[in-house]
Amino acid sequence: MRINLVLTGFGIVGREFIKLLEEKRDALRGNYDLDIRLVAVGGRGGFLANEDGLDLTALGGAETGSRSLQAYADAQGSPLVASFGEADALIEATPTDTDTGEPGLGYIMQAIRNRMDVVALSKGALVRHYNEIFAAAATNRVRLKFSGATAAALPTLDIGQISLAGCEILSIEGILNGTSNYILSRMQQDRLSFEEALRIAQSRGIAEANPKLDVEGTDSACKMLLLANCLLGSKLSLSDVSVTGIVGVTEQDLEEARAQGSKIKLLARARKQDGAVRVEVSPRKIGTDHLLFSVDGTNKGIVFRTDTMGEVGAVGGSSSPRGAAAAAMKDLIHLYRKI
Amino acid sequence: MRINLVLTGFGIVGREFIKLLEEKRDALRGNYDLDIRLVAVGGRGGFLANEDGLDLTALGGAETGSRSLQAYADAQGSPLVASFGEADALIEATPTDTDTGEPGLGYIMQAIRNRMDVVALSKGALVRHYNEIFAAAATNRVRLKFSGATAAALPTLDIGQISLAGCEILSIEGILNGTSNYILSRMQQDRLSFEEALRIAQSRGIAEANPKLDVEGTDSACKMLLLANCLLGSKLSLSDVSVTGIVGVTEQDLEEARAQGSKIKLLARARKQDGAVRVEVSPRKIGTDHLLFSVDGTNKGIVFRTDTMGEVGAVGGSSSPRGAAAAAMKDLIHLYRKI
Repeated sequence: MRINLVLTGFGIVGREFIKLLEEKRDALRGNYDLDIRLVAVGGRGGFLANEDGLDLTALGGAETGSRSLQAYADAQGSPLVASFGEADALIEATPTDTDTGEPGLGYIMQAIRNRMDVVALSKGALVRHYNEIFAAAATNRVRLKFSGATAAALPTLDIGQISLAGCEILSIEGILNGTSNYILSRMQQDRLSFEEALRIAQSRGIAEANPKLDVEGTDSACKMLLLANCLLGSKLSLSDVSVTGIVGVTEQDLEEARAQGSKIKLLARARKQDGAVRVEVSPRKIGTDHLLFSVDGTNKGIVFRTDTMGEVGAVGGSSSPRGAAAAAMKDLIHLYRKI
Repeated sequence: MRINLVLTGFGIVGREFIKLLEEKRDALRGNYDLDIRLVAVGGRGGFLANEDGLDLTALGGAETGSRSLQAYADAQGSPLVASFGEADALIEATPTDTDTGEPGLGYIMQAIRNRMDVVALSKGALVRHYNEIFAAAATNRVRLKFSGATAAALPTLDIGQISLAGCEILSIEGILNGTSNYILSRMQQDRLSFEEALRIAQSRGIAEANPKLDVEGTDSACKMLLLANCLLGSKLSLSDVSVTGIVGVTEQDLEEARAQGSKIKLLARARKQDGAVRVEVSPRKIGTDHLLFSVDGTNKGIVFRTDTMGEVGAVGGSSSPRGAAAAAMKDLIHLYRKI
């Protein structure tokens, strides 16, 4: 089966996805009968497009960003185009903007109008316009996957939708942000201040120059919000979520936890309560009896409490551009192959 | 969609499955459009059968075992029959016999000849006759699911087949037996001897009167063997697995681990090595940095090491008849509904 793909966002994750397309070409064909052709890549600065497929090797080895796409276009003698045309699916990997949902929202809606399936890696459009996007997708009979926006390589939606089929999910609890978990882990293990641990995380490429989304808890809130809307049937938006990040966690808090053999983790939680769904994010102390106690560093974890299977969860899926790209590839495989 | 089911094995798990069929009747209809009718239940002592569906309330409240089925038949004035007839699917829940694979093997092969899909909870037939069973299923175009035989409510095959789609699995490591994990946990936490911890496990219904399969590691070996054959492409049988159980774990071993902040766990492991797949089960020391460190009591856990997603695993799924029954129900839903 041949699939023509568009990629919006040529950042680190987008480029990693291109590398993976090339690296996994034979496996995708052999294991899933998928022959995937990248026909357009770009964003606000314009799109490289080629109906016969772009050169994955060149793009995978290029600098990220629109200037690099421009240089590629110049070298090929074919100018960038303003937008992408029709194809089978969109991989949406532009930066997350939780205020406007743009530019992802525009690309997702355009793809849906074009009757393209969508794999979303960025969260902004989904947390701001969840109902609108899913209504448009239903009208146009396209499918939308977003593992990349709900903790990427950590299987969260897979467990909730597939492994817990037939169960009622009573509550969900997760360590969903690898950056803040890394910072807390370093503060805890090495008795560092928040600022010291953040600096190390930034120097290793784990935290961004502007770490607000991660350390203030917004990223965790976005992920749990999407999981709650998808798995618990809520229709919440970001303003409904009570969010406290890790900025206020002190060395004394950690010392106290350590003395009790506990750890402090940034937990995102969603639970059914009196007919409604409540979502909150805050740092909490957990003991060795908690299934997520050993989820340290950039690892993530999630636990679902259910009526018939007890507690079932997932761990690992360490945050990385490669893991995020692999999650998008998994979604793409699921769109076209019955596993 | 109406599904006619046969259940072989009216033990604790089989009866729990019947209870769940009744408890979840509305959810199965509403969420998955599945209208499930139990048309036969039984085993070596004979089968209760009714094309219009057996009385789930009566069976769910009955004693387990063939005498109880006989009493039900007597009360209804309809005798037990020697075998089951045609239906859509078989739920195979007879006791596991790893030497012969019977009686499960006979029932599974009969169902496959009848072109019925199969959900296996018992392991004996699969570990003894894996290739033969799957060849017959392919010839007769029926599908076979066996979550119940690979750690039940802990999602093992789901993660390997679905969540890791597109990844190469390099190795698998798991705490796959809830009974031996409970015994080790109690020995570790409460400084009990193996015999004391086993007695407590037996008094709580966690260990069977004959705990050999669990404490000698065979149950863990069966599960990892099935996972390796299914996910790593091996064609191993039980005699290829090197197995050491927990019987030889001493209080001194545990004291040493405790002094280092470690724990001893019964780990089942499978890995690709020099073009072959090696499977082994043995007690091993793990530290707080291991993703399965907090998997205690009757909980289970599994970690997959992959090429693109790093380490991804599942935790929880505490062993219980209800959890096993819920895993079979999940398989049944997966057979008939694209999730």
